[in-house]
Amino acid sequence: MKANTIITISRQYGSQGREVGQELANRLGIPYYDRDLITLAAKESGFSEDLFDQLDRRATNSFLYSLTMFGSAGINGLSLTDQLYVTQRNIIRDLAAKGSCVFVGRCADYILRKEPEIYNFFIKAPMEKRLEHAKDDPKVPEATKETLEKLDKQRSAYYNFYTGQIWGNAANYDMCLDSGVLGVSKVVDMILEYIDIAQKE
Amino acid sequence: MKANTIITISRQYGSQGREVGQELANRLGIPYYDRDLITLAAKESGFSEDLFDQLDRRATNSFLYSLTMFGSAGINGLSLTDQLYVTQRNIIRDLAAKGSCVFVGRCADYILRKEPEIYNFFIKAPMEKRLEHAKDDPKVPEATKETLEKLDKQRSAYYNFYTGQIWGNAANYDMCLDSGVLGVSKVVDMILEYIDIAQKE
Repeated sequence: MKANTIITISRQYGSQGREVGQELANRLGIPYYDRDLITLAAKESGFSEDLFDQLDRRATNSFLYSLTMFGSAGINGLSLTDQLYVTQRNIIRDLAAKGSCVFVGRCADYILRKEPEIYNFFIKAPMEKRLEHAKDDPKVPEATKETLEKLDKQRSAYYNFYTGQIWGNAANYDMCLDSGVLGVSKVVDMILEYIDIAQKE
Repeated sequence: MKANTIITISRQYGSQGREVGQELANRLGIPYYDRDLITLAAKESGFSEDLFDQLDRRATNSFLYSLTMFGSAGINGLSLTDQLYVTQRNIIRDLAAKGSCVFVGRCADYILRKEPEIYNFFIKAPMEKRLEHAKDDPKVPEATKETLEKLDKQRSAYYNFYTGQIWGNAANYDMCLDSGVLGVSKVVDMILEYIDIAQKE
């Protein structure tokens, strides 16, 4: 694999996108980043870690609410929600500059779109499989079709707001794969095969 | 492969989606349908083949224009544009009922969504590759980025109007693949592998 290869994973809620990202990073022996970003961000930015975590959860999970509550301009002209985004964006850029890695979520595909060796994947799964996985997730209070659709809508609103792009638009990804049909391991095989072909061109 | 397996291909303009569909059908030894539908439709519906062809081109290529010009209700309460859609829909259903086959475009993924063994794929390619392919297409007067984007917008408007779904939304496809990076033959390999895994479950 070429130096500074960046892999980003966007995913439907409950589609095991996180597992795909982790297995990719493991197999390639490169770092994997998702919520860990928050901890890093909190430390670097001087935000209280607790406040940061709370804000981040709100910003992603009930974005419209957080725009209303934290959307007014703060000290340096940016609302708290925007400060959170900007801080995460800067951290994502710094991490990507260090070498090859895998990002799950956090608009990393958009933030790093100018990287020469970036590969973006979208992971989906049939609703019945997503419900199974969401049942084990302590962050989902009640795993119903409606809850998962709502969580995806919130992710989508957050992404669309900060990137001006449409979340889940096939044209923006190198490949979109169904982890429910293929399984995590086969999805990882296909992603690695894709990058291999793309880098040989 | 299971009996009555239906494969549909949606594609960006110039992404070689048609070639993917044809190679799939060839390798599987099953029928392939796209513009041929129109000829069939024209014969069956009693429309003059010429008028049908002209209308169809307008309906797909400048959908908003055709809504204005042919959008008023005709004899049986349907506008000409709607009659065209309904006729094509009925033909697509009849063809699918005959056995396994491949459809390219024509909202077949939506029309046949209740088929038990339907598999839907979206084919994309980088703009520079799409421009190369579009140069050889007599239907594209001038192969520029703007022309191709406009053609995709028209496809999208037509699809969204008749299906109520968003064209190119990754969640609606089994897999989205980049033919510019992978090449037609590898895309076909991956589609066949996907269907094989899905049908073994």
